[in-house]
Amino acid sequence: MIAKKMLQYVEGSSVTRAMFEEGKRLAQIYGKENVYDFSLGNPSVEPPKAVNEAMISILRDMDSNYVHGYMNNAGHEEVRDTIAKSLNQKFGTRFSLKNIIMTVGAAGGLNVILKTLLDPGDEVIAFAPYFGEYNHYVANFDGKMVAVSPCIPDFQPNLAELEEKLTPRTKAVIVNTPNNPTGVVYSEEVIQRLAAILEKKQREFGTAIYLLADEPYRELVYDGVEAPYLTKYYANTIVGYSYSKSLSLPGERIGYLVIPQEAEDFENLVNAATIATRILGFVNAPSLQQLAVARCVEEAVDLSVYDANRKLLYDKLISLGFECAKPQGAFYMWVKALEEDDSAFVAKAKEFQLLFVPGSSFMCPGYVRIAYCVDIDMIKRSFAAFEKLAECYRSKGK
Amino acid sequence: MIAKKMLQYVEGSSVTRAMFEEGKRLAQIYGKENVYDFSLGNPSVEPPKAVNEAMISILRDMDSNYVHGYMNNAGHEEVRDTIAKSLNQKFGTRFSLKNIIMTVGAAGGLNVILKTLLDPGDEVIAFAPYFGEYNHYVANFDGKMVAVSPCIPDFQPNLAELEEKLTPRTKAVIVNTPNNPTGVVYSEEVIQRLAAILEKKQREFGTAIYLLADEPYRELVYDGVEAPYLTKYYANTIVGYSYSKSLSLPGERIGYLVIPQEAEDFENLVNAATIATRILGFVNAPSLQQLAVARCVEEAVDLSVYDANRKLLYDKLISLGFECAKPQGAFYMWVKALEEDDSAFVAKAKEFQLLFVPGSSFMCPGYVRIAYCVDIDMIKRSFAAFEKLAECYRSKGK
Repeated sequence: MIAKKMLQYVEGSSVTRAMFEEGKRLAQIYGKENVYDFSLGNPSVEPPKAVNEAMISILRDMDSNYVHGYMNNAGHEEVRDTIAKSLNQKFGTRFSLKNIIMTVGAAGGLNVILKTLLDPGDEVIAFAPYFGEYNHYVANFDGKMVAVSPCIPDFQPNLAELEEKLTPRTKAVIVNTPNNPTGVVYSEEVIQRLAAILEKKQREFGTAIYLLADEPYRELVYDGVEAPYLTKYYANTIVGYSYSKSLSLPGERIGYLVIPQEAEDFENLVNAATIATRILGFVNAPSLQQLAVARCVEEAVDLSVYDANRKLLYDKLISLGFECAKPQGAFYMWVKALEEDDSAFVAKAKEFQLLFVPGSSFMCPGYVRIAYCVDIDMIKRSFAAFEKLAECYRSKGK
Repeated sequence: MIAKKMLQYVEGSSVTRAMFEEGKRLAQIYGKENVYDFSLGNPSVEPPKAVNEAMISILRDMDSNYVHGYMNNAGHEEVRDTIAKSLNQKFGTRFSLKNIIMTVGAAGGLNVILKTLLDPGDEVIAFAPYFGEYNHYVANFDGKMVAVSPCIPDFQPNLAELEEKLTPRTKAVIVNTPNNPTGVVYSEEVIQRLAAILEKKQREFGTAIYLLADEPYRELVYDGVEAPYLTKYYANTIVGYSYSKSLSLPGERIGYLVIPQEAEDFENLVNAATIATRILGFVNAPSLQQLAVARCVEEAVDLSVYDANRKLLYDKLISLGFECAKPQGAFYMWVKALEEDDSAFVAKAKEFQLLFVPGSSFMCPGYVRIAYCVDIDMIKRSFAAFEKLAECYRSKGK
């Protein structure tokens, strides 16, 4: 009796649920401490103390009807103003509150902007490997998802193929840097080349092609790497941001969209995105969270924890002969499976209580995603299992 | 460059924005205290103290990664368990956590369940006058909205017309009791007749017709009236609830869906609604708000404030000759316009700094909605303006 499309999703999702159940089952057999779950992108570092302090102070000192009440669907004006100023200071941009729309996380923001942009049949391009949810978000609005195949082994965007796949129906190109699942950060030079291609194609087709920068991992960078701020390179850039990772607040659903003044059709974009926020049922981003993040724009989680995990796990994997580009951002490692079929490799790993996500979930078979946003002791305890897994394939002669 | 559908919405919404701007303009000319804004459904009563106390205690005492982290897309299990038990105690139902899905308010919940149910072209019925956003929610999933015309003057649902308009493509019927905009509460006898019609048509068509009970005003009832709990009368009932009004938390976006075990296709409904929560970009209802409302299931705002407003305004309007069914729920009065064109009447009222919403916005021209969730002093100050408005039509001989 449910919708046909949803029935497919329900049937498809039983695989993921089975994996989740499998994790619980393994924990019952082997004990929780002997299951090494690297499958979830759930931040392990605590939110900065300032977040709870801000929330408590808001709850204590501000008018309750204001704190918990409706505001403009785009969000509290003073919150949007604070965020705009903070971005300007960090990136030399010139945003005002009119450029900021508060959203229910980055996932909410992407749905809002895709609702704003897509007519049925419009095309959206993403670079494999990419977050599988993009497929659903685009399908929500009857858009057509077009995947650009991966550049192996550096997993920078495949710009030659992008150029081929841009068409007059291309409404948007999604980039996600720092990247989930690879941990790769796109360099300034890559962004410049990407922008040049989009500019050229816009002129050729006489269309607007929006670059959607999905940036929940913006602050999660290591080795002194910097992620360029994309609106500075390409006028039709729209940024989707989330505090899920930078402040470890994924369950609180708080983020924002940046729609720069110079984006084509700016007024309509902002008005439509505000309406989309309302009619998709978000209505507005949660009010208390809005007020709290505005007081924490200069805060960030303790990155040294993720960095220590990264170094520890990376060195171990390399020493065992795994192939992996050293991630410079996010909290994922993208590792070549030791056999062609990544799902078979994930199943084999599970025999040693190691849980990964197969690359197929990111439209890039042959790899697995290992999330290192976990307790460092779990990483240490998992080493013997990684050794056995590697040994198992060595002895197979693969 | 934005989507064609959204361009229509942007153009349509300029009217509402103009009205909002007009309110601000009037305040600048006449002073804020001389503008009587009865147009907004924003709760004026403070949230119970227990809400902020619960939030502060959660922030202080619980693990931060738990409070702010991801959970199952359907919501925290202990929250859903607490809500199920509270409903069972209040209404004699037999829900468990499996029947509860936490949502981003009632608007989020309605979008989730419509995504779950609707194939393109499926029909959804609502009784005029109804909340205009339903049209957008149904259109989001390419459903077809079918309006049943109003029963004048009592504004109970027009069941004879419902029966005619039910077809094999009817997937859902939305009821909203206590009602926005009329304040009417459906009696048990009406619910029983409604259920009988739906049962009969389900048998006739061999389909499932889901009754969507949109219940953000459930607790806002006066004169000792009780709003029946609809799952007890019809198996295929799905309840959408929100704490926006009962706890005055509209900006916090917290509510839930109830999907009873006896609903047809129960397992698929729950799984699909959980997936819809994720892929529509909600991901989950805001975590802190979930934990807080679970501690406040026995709390409610001080209804005596709304009730005093209701009596004061109702008596005045009746004494001036306005026609209005005495509202028994919500915080709206549904008043017959003093001329046929409700928009012209709204414009005339604005000349006296009285702001209402025209009935046309609720698919029921000839009436206006007057929201009395305002400061009682504003109501008192507005009386002279209401007198002038009535006098103006008397002198016109209308």
